[in-house]
This record gives sequence, structure tokens and C-alpha cells, in this order.
Amino acid sequence: MSKILTGIGASAGIAIAKAFRLEEPNLHVDKKEVADKEAEVQRFEAAISQSTTELQKIRDHAKEELGADKADIFEAHLLVLSDPELLTPVKEKITQEGANAEFAMKETADMFVTMFESMDNEYMRERAADIRDVTKRVIANLLDVEIPNPSMIAEEVIIVAEDLTPSDTAQLNRQFVKGFTTNIGGRTSHSAIMARSMEIPAVVGTKTAMAEIENGTLVILDGKDGKVLVNPEPAVVKDYEEKKAAHEAYKAELAKFVDVPTVSADGRQVELAANIGTPEDVNGVLENGGEGIGLYRTEFLYMGRDQLPTEEEQFTAYKTVLERMEGKPVVVRTLDIGGDKELPYLDLPKEMNPFLGFRAIRLCLEMQDMFRTQLRALLRASTFGNLKVMFPMIATLEEFRQAKAMLLEEKTKLEQEGTAVSDAIEVGMMVEIPSSAVMADVFAKEVDFFSIGTNDLIQYTMAADRMNERVSYLYQPYNPAILRLIKMVIDAAHKEGKWAGMCGEMAGSEVAIPILLGLGLDEFSMSASSILPARSAILHLSQKEISEFNEQILRMDTAEEVEAFVRNKFLKK
Amino acid sequence: MSKILTGIGASAGIAIAKAFRLEEPNLHVDKKEVADKEAEVQRFEAAISQSTTELQKIRDHAKEELGADKADIFEAHLLVLSDPELLTPVKEKITQEGANAEFAMKETADMFVTMFESMDNEYMRERAADIRDVTKRVIANLLDVEIPNPSMIAEEVIIVAEDLTPSDTAQLNRQFVKGFTTNIGGRTSHSAIMARSMEIPAVVGTKTAMAEIENGTLVILDGKDGKVLVNPEPAVVKDYEEKKAAHEAYKAELAKFVDVPTVSADGRQVELAANIGTPEDVNGVLENGGEGIGLYRTEFLYMGRDQLPTEEEQFTAYKTVLERMEGKPVVVRTLDIGGDKELPYLDLPKEMNPFLGFRAIRLCLEMQDMFRTQLRALLRASTFGNLKVMFPMIATLEEFRQAKAMLLEEKTKLEQEGTAVSDAIEVGMMVEIPSSAVMADVFAKEVDFFSIGTNDLIQYTMAADRMNERVSYLYQPYNPAILRLIKMVIDAAHKEGKWAGMCGEMAGSEVAIPILLGLGLDEFSMSASSILPARSAILHLSQKEISEFNEQILRMDTAEEVEAFVRNKFLKK
Repeated sequence: MSKILTGIGASAGIAIAKAFRLEEPNLHVDKKEVADKEAEVQRFEAAISQSTTELQKIRDHAKEELGADKADIFEAHLLVLSDPELLTPVKEKITQEGANAEFAMKETADMFVTMFESMDNEYMRERAADIRDVTKRVIANLLDVEIPNPSMIAEEVIIVAEDLTPSDTAQLNRQFVKGFTTNIGGRTSHSAIMARSMEIPAVVGTKTAMAEIENGTLVILDGKDGKVLVNPEPAVVKDYEEKKAAHEAYKAELAKFVDVPTVSADGRQVELAANIGTPEDVNGVLENGGEGIGLYRTEFLYMGRDQLPTEEEQFTAYKTVLERMEGKPVVVRTLDIGGDKELPYLDLPKEMNPFLGFRAIRLCLEMQDMFRTQLRALLRASTFGNLKVMFPMIATLEEFRQAKAMLLEEKTKLEQEGTAVSDAIEVGMMVEIPSSAVMADVFAKEVDFFSIGTNDLIQYTMAADRMNERVSYLYQPYNPAILRLIKMVIDAAHKEGKWAGMCGEMAGSEVAIPILLGLGLDEFSMSASSILPARSAILHLSQKEISEFNEQILRMDTAEEVEAFVRNKFLKK
Repeated sequence: MSKILTGIGASAGIAIAKAFRLEEPNLHVDKKEVADKEAEVQRFEAAISQSTTELQKIRDHAKEELGADKADIFEAHLLVLSDPELLTPVKEKITQEGANAEFAMKETADMFVTMFESMDNEYMRERAADIRDVTKRVIANLLDVEIPNPSMIAEEVIIVAEDLTPSDTAQLNRQFVKGFTTNIGGRTSHSAIMARSMEIPAVVGTKTAMAEIENGTLVILDGKDGKVLVNPEPAVVKDYEEKKAAHEAYKAELAKFVDVPTVSADGRQVELAANIGTPEDVNGVLENGGEGIGLYRTEFLYMGRDQLPTEEEQFTAYKTVLERMEGKPVVVRTLDIGGDKELPYLDLPKEMNPFLGFRAIRLCLEMQDMFRTQLRALLRASTFGNLKVMFPMIATLEEFRQAKAMLLEEKTKLEQEGTAVSDAIEVGMMVEIPSSAVMADVFAKEVDFFSIGTNDLIQYTMAADRMNERVSYLYQPYNPAILRLIKMVIDAAHKEGKWAGMCGEMAGSEVAIPILLGLGLDEFSMSASSILPARSAILHLSQKEISEFNEQILRMDTAEEVEAFVRNKFLKK
């Protein structure tokens, strides 16, 4: 009987193949008293050493298949395996209480997992997941139970699992694994991120995939709509095969636009740039024909570690990106932490409303040593490409002036020290706080460019936390209020001869592209995979024609009305 | 030697008198084993009964001196004293463990206090304070220690204390107690609220008052600047006596304006209204010459209780306010909970950013039963005065339309049931979310009025939590961005022949008043005590003259520049 499961589309695309269930091994642990405590400690140490060897192999495999940054997670796992904070209590439980190693390991790990998971901190919760993954391996080795090894799969399958740990995903062989679906997980879980980076379709959070799908069943995965079709009728299979072929043809068609300049049908050229988080992401940008980096989120340099990155580490990262972009513009956003992005080692106070709190430039203007280190690294890297520096979360003109003054001070210092610094660095700001959109005319006199950060701008303008499902109906990119603010920013920039870009998710969205083109946006920055579809859209649109509807659109009552109008007017096939 | 302590000015005014230290009684409790458990339980019950009698007296005294709503706190205390959840475990500790009653009471109460205090919930933290206050009394009665009795004070004094509990404050005799200062507490602590309601100066949170001030020392309290001058030089005393006289003369001068209409020097009439929370607050409004209620915050009807108020309870409250205002406009804001105002009995999910969450109209549109009950109560009360209904936190036109439709549906139902409903009810909205300010021209076509809620509008426009000290520098009422949004709202209203008011704290502020008058604001709503100073200011200002500077002010760079300009131009003496 056919069934359709729904979940969260974590990675787009269609896959059709037989199910391969990744069963959880039975790792049930009983408490036992051991007679020879010394021998038990040795048994424990042997398991740690075996697990270490296995993890090193997985890491190397991941590095080869997925790149160094994706393999970092296993460095973290290896650290856990050698962490005395974890190992010492286990050994003490063995020597002092005579507990068996499995039980001692499980009890100790559970304690840490519970502690880290209860922390209201994304970073610590990830550490909990790491410990859980590593502990599973150690206990399996102690129990001599085999952990399923997805790297042994040698036919085309769709993986079905409760969840995929980072070690699981890293072992997947892209040649045979056509996609996966899991019971748990969300769009930002490890497995989802891995799927997108491997470019295989994935549907996570189905809740029932493991209960509903048997080994060998034919499965269709629709990673865009988040659907899993179990045992579909032949007609449905045919349908999806066509969709899959169409999708692949579309991708092949898009590939033709990689080196085409982004010029609208009536001759208006805009820049299509990409948002990146690490130097490794530059690959995807170039593969997808990005004309620049519109947003380099530097906070990843600061995350997943236990102290601030040095000036040298930052310099290397910035230099790498600038060099690899070969003179194309690279807009680097200075550190934007706080809010939903915490750095445990800074030990910032817990806030009632972190999105309205002490974050980004607010924090940098106070923690000047940290900020100036980043500015110096940027300035030193500036001679290796086309650097533009952008400050996040600017709410007042004083903040921009202070941040820019610090940049200029560090520039002067470096020059006095004999270090070359580019004289062509543009200094701009994110417009993501309503006050700065409303005051764009005043800011435009002092900045070199604006980049509109719609994710935050929408949430503040609508007073609705974009992560809170109960108010998600208010996250309305096409609300005329948002469009009016965007217009204010673009007009203000142009009046002073400056450029205006956008680096929020909105910049890559089908409905927003014609509107933004009509309003005169100069630069669109988005995830690399959205660049070619955006280019293909812009090539067929006429800026002048759309702009004649600007006033009409901005005077509409609701977001719904705007979207319907744009779909009907500019997107109909 | 003279000293100056600084704290938080909790209630304005100057007091000069000798210090009276309210010493904490020694309530140290030792654990003992009791032989006769039965007798110990009886001793405990006797202490409960004695405490009950004392609290009833305090409640009656409070009701007489301060009004019924201020005495409510003692009803809550009496409830604690009869709560089996607290009393049963105490008795069990006595009968099962043979603990002495003092110890059993202390241990049990401490457990509840710790539990409630750790909750991230204002309401529960207040319950913790109640339990602490009540427990002190019970233990004192058990130990036969006297609790200081401020009601016995019979000379002019300034009270000095670690903190003042509600019972302490309620017992103060206004004839003799000229003011108080405490080591702990903030602007919104019980003691601070009580001081403002008793209209005596208070400085709280000095940290060291108890350590620095001896009994009988001469003390000057400056409740506006939050200063406590201990043992001041005679010249300083003379200075403050003059300040005090000047302050009193100013108050007497202001009192002349109680019945004067609010008309600017060049003949522009505006409405000066008050913000209230309970029907009792109407007294203060009328005493201070309020021309209406610009904001009746109905959430107090829902707070400090364990279930929703009935339609009847609400009807009575609304009817009382409308009747007492005798046809003057009364703007009632529908329930605005969520955010920093929680209702424990609704059991709403904890949110990451409550200020950007599921609150106010968002919640009411979903919890329709609750909302419709309030709307019915309002509609039924509408024939008893001049009711205007206002919806909070409107972000989109759809929300306003939905809320208004529900109001009209309930009106029709009531009329079909034969209940009279006024046909002249104006239906308006708060403008406190940037999107609705930006879209005011669209909203103005459908609302009867706007009331600008600056507290929230500022925090969203600047993306800065107004309760978070680390970003308090961004809470800028005079930021040109805020002023531009206010102008958009006023202009949009006037263009459609509607009126625009303001009910945030800004409406009563010295610097804002000339700006708002110049921008054409029609109604200013503020705390009752600000009305007369505001009226006095407006009588001397020329609307036309100020409005000539509107464009100049709105084009300024920073809040600082605006404030300096206004002070220099319109406030210089």
C-alpha cells in the first residue's frame, strides 16, 4: 500500500530508490559489579583507543569527500575522546565503585548530556550531541556490537533512520546514497546541513519514517516539498521520474548562465553575490557564477572553539577569500554575535530578549580589543582583493561614526607600523534595524554603501521573532511596510551616489526579485545555490516595466495582495 | 560628618527629618527536636491564627489609608496563611520528624521561596515576596519576637530600612512619616509603588543606608534625584528647605490649572488624558484635571488571580470607569498580555524573545473565547459613558480587520439579545510596531483613531529591549527616526479626518511636549501626576511657532542634537 509521509524538506531535489534502514544498534547497558577493577579500566582504555582509530578514519574520509570544514566535527569528537573531564569520572566510577566500564561511561556521559542540553545555548546543545555520538561508539566497542557502517552500502538506496549522526553522514557514499529521510531533526540539524552540502535530497523530522518504511521498499523523496512517498503506484513513480528529469534539465539549463552577466531584459545590470560563512564556501560561489560576496559572516571564525581567534587566524581567512575571489567585491560583515549566536567563552549575561539585546556592533563598540583585532586583520587582508567592510546592527549615526573611526584609527596605526593597507576599502552598514531604514537619507551621507538585512529588518519592523512559530505569520517579506522601508534605503543611497544591496533571504526569493529590481536594488546577495535561478529570472525581466508599478505596489494594503499581484503580473509563465 | 548616599529615586519630592531605623527583628531559628508533637502543632496553629488577626488589622488600615486596591496585597497574604499547600508540609515536618514549628515553617517557606524566585516570571517572584513577608510574621509570633510596628511612630521621621515589606508600608502613618530610604528595591518594587501612591518621597536601592545612618540623624531625602543627604551642613539644609518650599509653591501653582482647558498660547486646543490601570486610579485623574483616559490598561483585571475574570467582573470595572469619567473620553485597550506580562493560569509557552512573541492582539485573535468575553463586557459598558476601544500590537491590516470584525459580531449578538450598546464607540489601534507607523496612511482609512505607544515603538524601531540596561542608550525618544514615524502617524490620521494620540511615557516628557505639539498631536496621555506640569507647559507654547521647525528637527542627525535644540529653543527660561 502506498503512503505519503511529510517532514521538513532539508535539502531540495528528487530521489527514487529502495529504502535502506540504518538500524540503531542495541546498546543496552546493565550495571554490573566488576571484580578486577584494574582490568576494567584497561578494557575501557582499549575501547577509547579503538574508537579513536575509527573516528580518525571517518574524519579522513570526510575530509576527502566533503572538505576540511565539514570534517571539523570529527576533530571535535576526537577532542571529546581525549577529554579528562569526561574520562576521569568514568575511571573513578570503575575504580571507586567497581562499576563496569559500559555503565560508568553511560552514566557519566548522560550526566554531561543532560547538563549541556538544559543550557539555553545552541553551542552547548551541539556539544551534547557530540558527546552522545562519541559515547555510542565507545559503548558499542565495549559491548562488541557493530555500529552500522553506511560506507559499506554498494547499491543505490535512500537511507531511512531515526536520526543521522555526523559520523553516519560523513560515511555516506555519494555514489550510492541518493537521499535520506529521518524521524527527527530540523532544517538546521547537522544531518540537514550535511545533506545540502552533499547536494542530495533529504526529508527530516518525519516522526514515523522508521515505523512506516521497511527495508527494500521503493521510496520517492521530494526534498523541496518535504514529502516521502512510500511504495508509490507506478503512475506516481513515472510522474516523479519526469519531475526529476525536468529538475535536472532545469539545472543543466541554469548551468549555462554561470558566466553570463546579470543584465535585465531592458539592459539594467545588477550584481548577483553570495552569502558565505567560511573560506571553503567560496567554491560554491564560483561554481554558481557569483559576481561577488555580498555577505561574509565572520562569526563562524569565532564559534565552535574556546577562545577568540587571533589576528593572524582571521587575516588568513580574510586573505584566502579575497584572493580566491580575484578582485570581485567581498563584503565582510564584522562580528555579529549575541542574539541567537552565543560565544560561550565571552560569558555574556543571559538576556530576556536576546534579539533586542547586547549584540553585534553594540557589543563590539564596548569590547574594543576584540573588535580592533578583527579590524586589523581585515585591513591587513585588504591589499589581497576588493574588500568592503560592513558593520551590523547599526541603529544610530553615532554607532556608525564610532565604528568607522576605530577602523580609521587602526588603519593609521598599521600604516605607521609599515603595513600596507588598501586605500579603496568601502565602509558600509547593514540596514536591519527600522531606525536606520527610516534615517537612511542621513546615513547615506556618511556610508559608502548599504546592505539591507531583511531577516532582522522584517522581524523588528513586524515585532515578531522569526524563530517563534506562533508569530511566524507575521514574518512577511512582502508586507508593504517592508517594501517602503527598502525603497527609502535604495532612494537614499542613490541620491548620494552610493549603492544599495540586500543580503537577507529575501534577495533570492522568486517573488521579491522583480519587486527589488523595480525598486532599483543594485546588489542581490543570497545563498550560492540561488544565484543561477535568480540570474535566469532577471534576464527575462524589464526593470523599467516593473518600476512603473512601484507606487501601486507600495500603496497596497497587505503582503498577500502584493504577492498575488507580482505572481500574476511578473511570474506567470 | 555629612555624607551623600545615592540610590534610585522612587517617588519625587524633598523630605527633611530625623532618621528612624526600622530594624529587622532577630528571627534566627534553630532546629530542635520536640517531645510533644501534638502540642507543637497547636503552638503552630496558634501562631497562624495570631498572624491572621494581625494581618486583617493591617489590611483594614491599608484599605482606609490607601484604598481597596492597595489593600489587595494583604488579601493575598491572608490566602497564603490559609493555604494547605504551605501549612500541610509544615505540620508534617512537626508530626513526622518532630521538628520545632519555627524550623518546620522556615524550611518549608524557604523551599517555596527558592522555587518561585527561580521562575522567570514576575508574578511568581511576587508570590515569593508574599511568602517571605508572611513567614516573617509567623516566625516572629512563634519566637515571641516583636516585629517593628511603624504605625506607632508619632513624630516626623524618615524611615531607614533594609527593605520595606508591603505590611510595613501599609502601616506607615502619613502624618508622621515624611519619606523613606531602603538598601534594596527598584523603581517598580512594592515599596516604591506604595511611596508614589502615598505621595511621599522615597529613595530605594541605596545599598548602604542601614550601615550609614544612625537613629535620630538628620536626613534629607531627594526623591527626584535619588539622593540621601546624611547629617547635612546647615547651609545645605537651608538650601533644601528652599528647594522644598519652591517645589511646594510649584505644586500649588500647578493646582490652579486643574480646571483650565489645555490650549496653547496661539489657541490650539489638545486633550490631556491619563493612563490608568484600575478603576481606583480615576481619583488621581480627576484630582489632576485629566480631560479623559487615554489608556486604560485592562490587564490588571487579569493579573494576580488564578483564573480569567468573568464578563460580569469586567463589565463592572469598565462601567465604573466610564461613569466616573462622566462622558469624558475613555480609551480602553484590550488585553495586552504576553511579553513581560504573564498570566500563569494561561500556561503560555516560554519564548526566547517574549517582546517579539505571541502577545496582545496576536494572542487574543487566537484565544477568541477570552477576547470575545472582554469585548462583550466593553460593549455592555459602552452606554455608561464615552467608550473608545483600542487594539494593542497591531502589525498588519488583517489583524485590525479581524479584531474589529469580532467586536462588531459581538455587538450584533448583544443587540439581538436585547442588550443596549452605544452606536458611537470609536474603534482605534495602538501604533507601537514600526510596520503600522510606516503603513499609517493605509490604516487611517479604517480606524477611528491612533494612539502611539512609544514605549514599544521605540524599542522595536531601535531593536533595543527597554528593560535591558546594556542597550538602554538606544532607548531614544528623540531619535529623529522615532519623530519621523510619529509624524507619519499624525499626518496620516489628519489626512483622513481622524485623531492621533500618544499614550507612551514620552507624551508627558518635558522635551517631547513641544515637539509633539509642533507635529500636531491631538491627545497626550500620561500618568496623572504629569498632567498639570504638561498643561502648564502647553499654555506657554505656540504650536505654530514650533511647527515651523518641524522639518529642521526631523532632518537632524541624532537624538542628542534634537534634545539640545529643543531645550535651547523652547525650554529656556
